Amino acid sequence: MSEITAAERAAMARARELALRGPRGVNPQVGAVILSPDGRTLAEGWHRGAGTAHAEVDALSQLASGGAAGATAVVTLEPCNHTGRTGPCAVALLDAGVARVVYGAADPGEASSNGAERLREGGVDVARTDEAEAEALIADWLFVQRTGRPRVTVKWAQSLDGRAAAADGTSQWITGPEARAHVHRERSAHDAIAVGTGTVLADDPRLTARIEGIDDAPQPVPVVFGERAIPADAALRSHPRGLRTAGHELERELADLAGDGIQTLYVEGGPTLASAFIRAGLADRFTIYLAPTLLGGPRTALDAIGVSTIDEQRRLAVTRLEQLGRDLLVEATTESEQ
Amino acid sequence: MSEITAAERAAMARARELALRGPRGVNPQVGAVILSPDGRTLAEGWHRGAGTAHAEVDALSQLASGGAAGATAVVTLEPCNHTGRTGPCAVALLDAGVARVVYGAADPGEASSNGAERLREGGVDVARTDEAEAEALIADWLFVQRTGRPRVTVKWAQSLDGRAAAADGTSQWITGPEARAHVHRERSAHDAIAVGTGTVLADDPRLTARIEGIDDAPQPVPVVFGERAIPADAALRSHPRGLRTAGHELERELADLAGDGIQTLYVEGGPTLASAFIRAGLADRFTIYLAPTLLGGPRTALDAIGVSTIDEQRRLAVTRLEQLGRDLLVEATTESEQ
Repeated sequence: MSEITAAERAAMARARELALRGPRGVNPQVGAVILSPDGRTLAEGWHRGAGTAHAEVDALSQLASGGAAGATAVVTLEPCNHTGRTGPCAVALLDAGVARVVYGAADPGEASSNGAERLREGGVDVARTDEAEAEALIADWLFVQRTGRPRVTVKWAQSLDGRAAAADGTSQWITGPEARAHVHRERSAHDAIAVGTGTVLADDPRLTARIEGIDDAPQPVPVVFGERAIPADAALRSHPRGLRTAGHELERELADLAGDGIQTLYVEGGPTLASAFIRAGLADRFTIYLAPTLLGGPRTALDAIGVSTIDEQRRLAVTRLEQLGRDLLVEATTESEQ
Repeated sequence: MSEITAAERAAMARARELALRGPRGVNPQVGAVILSPDGRTLAEGWHRGAGTAHAEVDALSQLASGGAAGATAVVTLEPCNHTGRTGPCAVALLDAGVARVVYGAADPGEASSNGAERLREGGVDVARTDEAEAEALIADWLFVQRTGRPRVTVKWAQSLDGRAAAADGTSQWITGPEARAHVHRERSAHDAIAVGTGTVLADDPRLTARIEGIDDAPQPVPVVFGERAIPADAALRSHPRGLRTAGHELERELADLAGDGIQTLYVEGGPTLASAFIRAGLADRFTIYLAPTLLGGPRTALDAIGVSTIDEQRRLAVTRLEQLGRDLLVEATTESEQ
């Protein structure tokens, strides 16, 4: 295995950019660049989603027959070794006569992995570079591969003393405009957003990501958990991504969401739903907005989460503390996730 | 009124040091320095508590008769103009023949104030300096003069979601050693410490200030609020400052504490007592320790505080945010106190 060249490293950075042109979904975002032996870019490609060509095949398809002979393929993810709706990329690269493959992240799939090995057996020089960046690019997808479910962020806003509302249920606005703007950016950064039917009935939220200065912010798919009916005139019914409903069996619902390409889920509330995710051990990240106010009373932001004695407490690892206007944002993970 | 000299400013700093030799109590801590016309220190004094000489009189008493003629008296607090257990200091200074008086804080007492005026009428040159430092020195005493009660700090430790304990009441230890050490320093910095009988019965606290490396840390007077009896073998009964009990009428109890020279009260809990102080509008400062953990369930750190609708929320002004080990300390005041 020879040294990584500067041209290959630059091509890998470019391949990561190309990867992001593809959609998030059941497949990872992957980019590829084909370099001539002297380091010129011959072709670029990226994966456009399940059922379409993989990135390296997409790049090869830009070239005339024989055009990749002796070339180097730079791919953000290890070429697959698996015949699904498309053939194994390792074989496609061998057939195209590439002399060398540089890849980033290893393919974790049981069925699809060992592409690097297959290439080596076929006489191709295989090297790996920028592994951390390549894995960061598909971190959520890797999480889904490992766990079979989306990565779950549970968010809530509360008074310092842990209340989501005053005794009569009123809560607008506990947090200030900076915190609320942050919530919209968080929504846009997730594939789907979950609320309980209680929140829909109480607040009639739109659940769109509204970011000042950005008209085309990515919109998460709204998912309403619970058994109660959603009113015909609910604001949510005009959500640009449509409306998805889910029942009480959280694990099964999450598996279904992952099966439909949802890699990240933002659980926005209310207390019942947030507590259910935490109780079930299905909360990976937390974004908690603390408003500098005291409310007291019965409307806690969380209810029972299955901690009957102190040894069962849900310890968090704080990953970020930030003042947002007058409010405080605490970002954390479960300790096991750190 | 002539300029403040460097010697006078240095003498004022020294007077503030001297003031701190006196006790906190119903009277303010006051220090005084007598300077010769050419700026040499002739005498120093401080107030040793109610019924004893005021600082300037204490300083004058160091001098032989006539020794203060033409001198400058530098005093942290405006000389009093009031005959209580001691005569008016303004008169004592006039009688001693001082030519000039430099003071720091103004005397807010209705009966005792206007000492500066009286001195001026008597032909003394009066000037004022380092007002902010002099007021900071007696800030708590000034608070008592203004409100008729001690300044109240309400402290609690909670999980991020606002619980003081798990469902079964267990709570050791939600916060880490750094936060617990901070609590001991806070205890030592207050004149008295309040707990409810519920906390005494549940936790049997010692309520001493135990600070590593300091054997003679000032100890607050423990005050137990509530109607239930304190067990004969309660740890609190061997507190070095003795044990004081108080009933349910918070305002009256606070007035009594102020009358006994308690300028600051540290309300340590539990939830019932903390909530009662907040509900009554008698909480001035808050020190809240947030542990990075979730507990859920019924054991909230505060219970009802009289907020029935969101417009009645108790807005706080955060004065300090600090990480203490893994925990977060939020120091705040009520908005009106800022």
